[in-house]
Amino acid sequence: RSMAMAAPSRKSLTIGLIPADGIGREVIPAARDAIVAVKSELPDLKFIDLLAGWETFTRTGTALPRDTVQILKEECDCALFGSVSSPSRKVAGYSSPIVALRKELDLYANIRPVVSVQDTSRVDLIVVRENTECLYVKEENLIQTEKGKEARATRLITERASSRIGRIGFELAKARPRKLLTIIHKSNVLSVTDGLFRESVRGVPALSDGKYDDVNIEEQLVDSAVYRLFREPQIFDVMVAPNLYGDIISDAAAALVGSLGVIPSINAGDNFVMGEPVHGSAPDIAGKGIANPVASIRSAALMLRHLGYVSAADKIDKAVNDTLAPAKLLTPDLGGTASTTQVTEHIMGLIKE
Amino acid sequence: RSMAMAAPSRKSLTIGLIPADGIGREVIPAARDAIVAVKSELPDLKFIDLLAGWETFTRTGTALPRDTVQILKEECDCALFGSVSSPSRKVAGYSSPIVALRKELDLYANIRPVVSVQDTSRVDLIVVRENTECLYVKEENLIQTEKGKEARATRLITERASSRIGRIGFELAKARPRKLLTIIHKSNVLSVTDGLFRESVRGVPALSDGKYDDVNIEEQLVDSAVYRLFREPQIFDVMVAPNLYGDIISDAAAALVGSLGVIPSINAGDNFVMGEPVHGSAPDIAGKGIANPVASIRSAALMLRHLGYVSAADKIDKAVNDTLAPAKLLTPDLGGTASTTQVTEHIMGLIKE
Ligand SMILES: CC(C)[C@H](C(=O)O)[C@@H](O)C(=O)O
Ligand SMILES: CC(C)[C@H](C(=O)O)[C@@H](O)C(=O)O
Repeated sequence: RSMAMAAPSRKSLTIGLIPADGIGREVIPAARDAIVAVKSELPDLKFIDLLAGWETFTRTGTALPRDTVQILKEECDCALFGSVSSPSRKVAGYSSPIVALRKELDLYANIRPVVSVQDTSRVDLIVVRENTECLYVKEENLIQTEKGKEARATRLITERASSRIGRIGFELAKARPRKLLTIIHKSNVLSVTDGLFRESVRGVPALSDGKYDDVNIEEQLVDSAVYRLFREPQIFDVMVAPNLYGDIISDAAAALVGSLGVIPSINAGDNFVMGEPVHGSAPDIAGKGIANPVASIRSAALMLRHLGYVSAADKIDKAVNDTLAPAKLLTPDLGGTASTTQVTEHIMGLIKE
Repeated sequence: RSMAMAAPSRKSLTIGLIPADGIGREVIPAARDAIVAVKSELPDLKFIDLLAGWETFTRTGTALPRDTVQILKEECDCALFGSVSSPSRKVAGYSSPIVALRKELDLYANIRPVVSVQDTSRVDLIVVRENTECLYVKEENLIQTEKGKEARATRLITERASSRIGRIGFELAKARPRKLLTIIHKSNVLSVTDGLFRESVRGVPALSDGKYDDVNIEEQLVDSAVYRLFREPQIFDVMVAPNLYGDIISDAAAALVGSLGVIPSINAGDNFVMGEPVHGSAPDIAGKGIANPVASIRSAALMLRHLGYVSAADKIDKAVNDTLAPAKLLTPDLGGTASTTQVTEHIMGLIKE
C-alpha cells in the first residue's frame, strides 16, 4: 500500500490551522489563501484556528492545549502548522509542541522535498525523516555525582518505526526516475541502534513481494552525507534517516537551494497529515510582512497531494514555480524586496488565470 | 592555564605513527617526512610504528592491539593517526580504534581548524569538538519485544567534560581577533543533556577569574548551524560542540573549503596529543599514490604547535600554504593532477629553503 491516501471521497475537508509563533502567523494565512484559491478542485472547505506555541505557553502555561489536540483528532482531516519559538533557557513545564504533535498524532514520516529554485538539475531530492523516536523520545535525566552533574538521554530506534519509514522511502524512490534510496546512519559508531535502522530499512523489499526490487539502495554516514550534500548534491535522490540526522540533513539540503523559506514538509501518518514549512519562527523578521510564504504554500500543496487532491496540488505548485522562476517577485530571503502579501497575491492570481 | 603545553624542555621527542587503513598509509609517512624536515627546531626525534585498524582486526582479531596503547602511554610523547576503514555490516568484536584511543588516552578535545585554501576571508574557523562522551560512549542495547526489535543508546553529557571542552573553546577564542565562541546544541529538544552542555560552557568564565570576559558568546542550534555554515560561514569563529554535532559540523565546514584533504585535527588531552587528518581512509583511491598529504602534514604541525614547538609548526604551515596558494601543485581532490609524493616533496623543499 502506498502511503498517499486514496482518491478522495470526502464531502468536506476540515483543515486545522496552527500558526503558532513569529512568522508562522504571517505564512499560515498565506497557505490558507492558496488553498481557497483552488477550492473548485476540493470538497467543501472548513478551517479551524487552533492554538499552540511559546506565546500560548506564556499566556496559558501550556504550549499545546488539550483542546488543540482533541479538535485535530476529532474534527480535522488535516492541518497546517507554522513555526515555534523556543525559550533561550530551559523553562519548567515548556516542551516543544511540534515534537509533541508528531508523536500524539503518530505522524511518523517527515517528508521534505528539496528542489533548486532555478536550476533543478542541481538539487532535486527528498529527505524522509523518521519523526517519532531517536533522541526525540525526550527521555532524559540528570543526576548529581561527586564529580558534578551528569545528564543522560535515551536514543530509541525500533524495528517497527525504522521499517515503516523505510517503506515510505522505498515508495517515494520507486516513483522517481532515478529510483535511488540512500540510507543515512552512523553505524560505524552506533552499531546497535543505527545498525537496527539500516537493517530494518534494507529489510523492507523482502516484506513487500518484490515491489521495490527496482529501487537502488545506497548508504552514507551522516557526517559524510553532509559533506557530500555540499559538494555533489546531485548524487542524492531520496534520503531516509533517523530523526535527528533527518533534521540536520534537511537544513543542509535547504541551504543549497537558496533559502529555507521555500522548503515545505508534511508530517504524515496513516490517518492524518500536517503540512509544516521547514523554516523556524524567525523572530528577527516577524511582524514585518516580509516572510517568504512559499514554504507554507508548498506545504499546503504537499498536504493536498498526500490526501489525493492531485490537481489542486499541481495548480498551486505550478503557480509557485511560475512566480519563482522569473526571479522578479522575491522576498528578501531570496534577494528580492517583495512582501509576503505581494508574493501570495501573485501566486493566487496565477492559480485563478 | 592554557591547554597548549608549556615551552618544551624535552631532550627527545618520541612520536607514535599509526597509519591504520587505506590512504592513512600514504599520508602518515608524508607527515613524518615534514616533521623530519624541521628537525633542527626539535629535540632528538624517534618514531615508533604502531598497528591499529580494520586490516589489523582482520589479521589479529583486534582493531586496537594492547601493545599499541601501552607503547603510546609509556614511550610516546605524541602520535599521528591516519584513518580507519570500517566494515559495511556489524562485525562481532570489531569496534572503532580511533574512538577507543580518544577515550583510552583521555584526549578530550578534538580541535579542527578550517580555513579556506585561497580566500581566507570566506572561512576561517575552528571546530572544538568534545571527544569522549555524547553518543560515543557506545552504551547500546537491543531487546526483542512483541512488536519487534528495540535498540537504545545512551547519550551522556557531563558537567565536567562540557566545562573542560568549554575552557578550550574560550582559550582558543580569546587568542583570535574576533574572540567569538559559538555554542552548538539542540536544547530545544534535548533540554536536559544539551541544557547541561550549554550551561557548563557558559559557566567557564565565572570559574576563570574574569580571564575570558572579553570573549563574546553566541549559540546556534545544530540544524541551523549547518544551514548557516553553508550560507554565511564568516559568521563563525570558534564553535564548541558535543561529540556528534562536532563530527557533523566539522565535515560541513570542510566541504566549504574545497576538500576534506586539507583539514587537520588534533585529539588533545592534558598529557598527550594525537594528530589526525579529518578525512577517512578513502578506499576508492587508496594505493594509487594520489591522496592529499596536506591534512596529515597540517595535523603534524598542529600537534607540534600544541607541544610548544611553535617555530617548527610555523615553518611547516608556511610551506603548506605556499604550496597551495599558487594552485599549481594540487592533488586530484583539489582539481589537480599531482601525486602525494610530489606535493610532499615540494613542501619539504620549501621548508629547507
Ligand atoms: C523546532 C524543532 C523542535 C524542530 C525539530 O528539530 O524537529 C525543527 O528543527 C524542525 O526541523 O522541524
Ligand atoms: C571514523 C569515525 C568513528 C570518526 C568519528 O565519528 O569520530 C570520524 O568520522 C571522525 O570525524 O574522526
